[in-house]
Amino acid sequence: MATPSTLLSREDLDFLLHHWLDVGGLLGRPRYAEHSRETVDAVLELSEQLATRHFAPHNKLADQNEPRMVDGRVEMIPEVGRALAAFAESGLLAAPMEPELGGARLPRVVATACFAWFQAANIGTAAYPMLTRGNAALLCAHGSRGQIDTWVRPMLAGRFYGTMCLSEPQAGSALADVATRAEPQPDGSYRLFGTKMWISGGDHELGENIVHLVLARTPGAPAGVKGLSLFLVPKYLLEPDGRTGDRNDVSLVGLNHKMGYRGTTNAVLAFGEGRHTPGGAPGAVGELVGAEHSGLACMFHMMNEARIGVGAGAAALGCTAYLKAVEYARTRLQGRPLGDKNPSGPPVPIIEHPDVRRMLLAQKAYAEGAMALILYCARLVDDKETAATAQDRQEAARLLDILTPIAKSWPSQWCLEGNHLAIQVHGGYGYTRDYDVEQHYRDNRLNPIHEGTHGIQALDLLGRRAIRDGGAALALLGDRIADTAARARKAGGDAADFARELHAAWSRVQGVTATVWADGDPARALVHATAYLEAVGHVVLAWLWLDVHLATGSADSPFHLGKRAACRYFFRHELPKAHLRFDLLESRDGTVTETDPGWL
Amino acid sequence: MATPSTLLSREDLDFLLHHWLDVGGLLGRPRYAEHSRETVDAVLELSEQLATRHFAPHNKLADQNEPRMVDGRVEMIPEVGRALAAFAESGLLAAPMEPELGGARLPRVVATACFAWFQAANIGTAAYPMLTRGNAALLCAHGSRGQIDTWVRPMLAGRFYGTMCLSEPQAGSALADVATRAEPQPDGSYRLFGTKMWISGGDHELGENIVHLVLARTPGAPAGVKGLSLFLVPKYLLEPDGRTGDRNDVSLVGLNHKMGYRGTTNAVLAFGEGRHTPGGAPGAVGELVGAEHSGLACMFHMMNEARIGVGAGAAALGCTAYLKAVEYARTRLQGRPLGDKNPSGPPVPIIEHPDVRRMLLAQKAYAEGAMALILYCARLVDDKETAATAQDRQEAARLLDILTPIAKSWPSQWCLEGNHLAIQVHGGYGYTRDYDVEQHYRDNRLNPIHEGTHGIQALDLLGRRAIRDGGAALALLGDRIADTAARARKAGGDAADFARELHAAWSRVQGVTATVWADGDPARALVHATAYLEAVGHVVLAWLWLDVHLATGSADSPFHLGKRAACRYFFRHELPKAHLRFDLLESRDGTVTETDPGWL
Repeated sequence: MATPSTLLSREDLDFLLHHWLDVGGLLGRPRYAEHSRETVDAVLELSEQLATRHFAPHNKLADQNEPRMVDGRVEMIPEVGRALAAFAESGLLAAPMEPELGGARLPRVVATACFAWFQAANIGTAAYPMLTRGNAALLCAHGSRGQIDTWVRPMLAGRFYGTMCLSEPQAGSALADVATRAEPQPDGSYRLFGTKMWISGGDHELGENIVHLVLARTPGAPAGVKGLSLFLVPKYLLEPDGRTGDRNDVSLVGLNHKMGYRGTTNAVLAFGEGRHTPGGAPGAVGELVGAEHSGLACMFHMMNEARIGVGAGAAALGCTAYLKAVEYARTRLQGRPLGDKNPSGPPVPIIEHPDVRRMLLAQKAYAEGAMALILYCARLVDDKETAATAQDRQEAARLLDILTPIAKSWPSQWCLEGNHLAIQVHGGYGYTRDYDVEQHYRDNRLNPIHEGTHGIQALDLLGRRAIRDGGAALALLGDRIADTAARARKAGGDAADFARELHAAWSRVQGVTATVWADGDPARALVHATAYLEAVGHVVLAWLWLDVHLATGSADSPFHLGKRAACRYFFRHELPKAHLRFDLLESRDGTVTETDPGWL
Repeated sequence: MATPSTLLSREDLDFLLHHWLDVGGLLGRPRYAEHSRETVDAVLELSEQLATRHFAPHNKLADQNEPRMVDGRVEMIPEVGRALAAFAESGLLAAPMEPELGGARLPRVVATACFAWFQAANIGTAAYPMLTRGNAALLCAHGSRGQIDTWVRPMLAGRFYGTMCLSEPQAGSALADVATRAEPQPDGSYRLFGTKMWISGGDHELGENIVHLVLARTPGAPAGVKGLSLFLVPKYLLEPDGRTGDRNDVSLVGLNHKMGYRGTTNAVLAFGEGRHTPGGAPGAVGELVGAEHSGLACMFHMMNEARIGVGAGAAALGCTAYLKAVEYARTRLQGRPLGDKNPSGPPVPIIEHPDVRRMLLAQKAYAEGAMALILYCARLVDDKETAATAQDRQEAARLLDILTPIAKSWPSQWCLEGNHLAIQVHGGYGYTRDYDVEQHYRDNRLNPIHEGTHGIQALDLLGRRAIRDGGAALALLGDRIADTAARARKAGGDAADFARELHAAWSRVQGVTATVWADGDPARALVHATAYLEAVGHVVLAWLWLDVHLATGSADSPFHLGKRAACRYFFRHELPKAHLRFDLLESRDGTVTETDPGWL
């Protein structure tokens, strides 16, 4: 690329991957023997090129021409299919998988950085392979050999697509209320009946088939989430020779029309409503995946991955909008320096105005911080599977467990705020559809909602992950934070100040966790779960920013100085927000619970 | 209305107007002798009915079918014109004006509450009369008798529309760089040449004519804002008998395509580009309004009013989205109480979930707080003109002066945040265009940009209004706050606690104002102007919430209990945010100014 991309900063990715996360060291492990700095560089370069050439050009077009339902089928602009064909052809979809599945054992941390180019370029089109890869990964983990051969291979080859079908019209976040039924058949298959809602990629004509992973209940299953089983339900049944055959009884009821993320179809699907009768009988034909009643556990495999994927998308949108805002602010001339009384002087680039620079620095702190968090988590996925010792693998799994709700929610909250600031930097132009940033803002608004809302992530963190195994994951996170703080104290200067502030903030995490759970009553403990999620999220980001700061050493290029400025910004302008939330949590304020619904 | 409206709460408006702002007392002044509680009730009722019947039904339609430029003319859905005809016919447009202009001397505080119904119902359509009324008010204050007769009368009758033309493509917020020229003609008129940008209502076919108020420079005028003069430039010239005649040389270059607020045309206009040659000569024919070189001062009359109008629109969007979120949360059944282990129990309305209630209470605190602020300011407009003593009138003017940037920016910031929460309460449904809240969010996103961006309001507050006349306005605001605090201390209970917190916060306003201006250097003082604006805004809202709390007395209906809960929410969850900003201001943190643009 002749000029730096406004999709992502390759310099930042290289720094985070190689200098900060030591991908070089990772590549020394046997699993990654095929890889080297050169192969990593090549796959990043390929991703940038494909994203720039095939994904970015139709981002606005797909927003302006959302998919439509015509005669029960989905019509969309052809650019989406062409981009996905190019993506599949590149081998990037299967890259992290095993060679026997067409993969290249690419480390997840590298694959995540690669995929971020596509998310930055066109989050709506990128959603299709993201869902498909998550679906394939779930089947690799929980499916049978036959399911992997039959369904995963064509997905990774770009011929089939995948979805996850959890929500129902009456049960969005409340999976305990999932009512779709799965009736066992004499041949060991099942027939499904029910309606699923909010299914991203739920229907389209992009490939030969769509593989739905569906939560449903078998007869006599326990109430609640413990009675859920997972089923694989294809859009088209397969002939014995593997070719696509008759329509299964999965039908498109309608498409949701969204504020953003418009390129991704979002469907209401009816299973077994009788529009088709495969083999002459009613019901959508499905196969059980994993054991009966273990549906939610299986699905969590995909959901955990999808949650980091949502955070990655939010981070990518934060990064691209930031780069576009910087470019605008460097080139747009308007106004004069504060206090300059000479109206005849030439106008200055608006980046000279402190308030504009503040808005850019905030965006940098949010977007690059979010990207660091996501890549850190992706590196944990690698460590969980390939670290040398069992203890290292367990620790990686624990850290990943506690960080997942933050990796989902923090970028979704703060990169949306960053997009808001990107619009503000552009002024009136940013509010028009001639510029990209308003679409990024609309697209990003989905991220605090799907794959578990912000509030659901909060309950998951405080109600489960923070206290599981006696709080082992939280304690481990504290150890890691203490390590960074110790190194920062040794480094001295600003970093030593930040280390003290980080230590103080972490102490409060420990304190409030104990305080809110003091009487062990979830009904009391979880009232301020969202404040807890947001406070811990800010402390985690402060930790990562300080760690990134330390990784810049004494280098003083504009890039390294910018990293340290963003770290300082985070400690001066952002970390204090965590303390407000700690204050609230410690006070166990009753304003909300004491407000009767009838008063609202 | 059989069921309570989800546009606005009439109960809230009645409480704020009569119980809190003592409109009854106001009506005792001679100017308002024609009015009584009955006439006020009737005009509010009329507003609700017209807004519900004529404005709300096409809100979504106008969003989905934005105005288009066809053969140089604007085409839009006919519902807009019909709604505006009904509005004009009702007499509401002229209601606050003098009887000789067709007005009814309706107090501004009542007129503002009336107009909020239209803004809540359809902000895009409501913008046309808002701009027209502002334009008319400016001409009444600064125009000649002839200009009032010729232009204001048809505007108030709904035949002509008005705009304000400040920005230019190269000069958005920087009015010092306005380059449009106005050349004097032998007959005393002027010919204008230049391009204006972001002109709301800049072109359309809704009426017989459009009256543009245009900032431009006469030959030899000083550089900067001191050289600006104001001109009235109609779209069509008038025949000697007052009928609409030839096209003036004002042409529509293009329409901006916005993220929201789509019903309001937003135009690029070319003046004097030669498409028409009125009277055979080049240039757009205009009349000087007020004195030469006093253009900005005149325009500020309209801008101050427009800024409160923007805040009112933001508040109205906050209120309607809040009411819709409450309604959704009461009727949507999902999930079970925290800690309830029985998955077979019935699902509860989501308003039972503490995090949902928190999001509703936050919206209530933002939206009803913003509405209280706006009505308080509107009452000051009345007092400024009609209070009994000169001192009272001067004090009202001073308070209005210091509160105007807050009235513009606080609702724009926090009711947008409220709309964000309204979407979140709706979950995935809120992100679809089937519900109203995503449109309110998109519409509201304009408000921190137009009529002076958030950052411009901040410079205006800290750089001018807070320090003008030795800080007289700020001191007066402090007196008012102290009055409320004193009454709250006497009331005891919660209110006394809040009084202490309010007093502490106000002390910090005084402290940081002195600190940032310690060396008198604007370049240093204004670096954190935005933090100042936001901190003072939160203190002002805490004051108003406490004052509203006191106005509820010991009444204990759900309405009054809700008001006190929202006040408590504001003090517990919101006011602490001001202290973070005070900390930043006191530290005179250099992170932003020490960040070189090249590092970003």
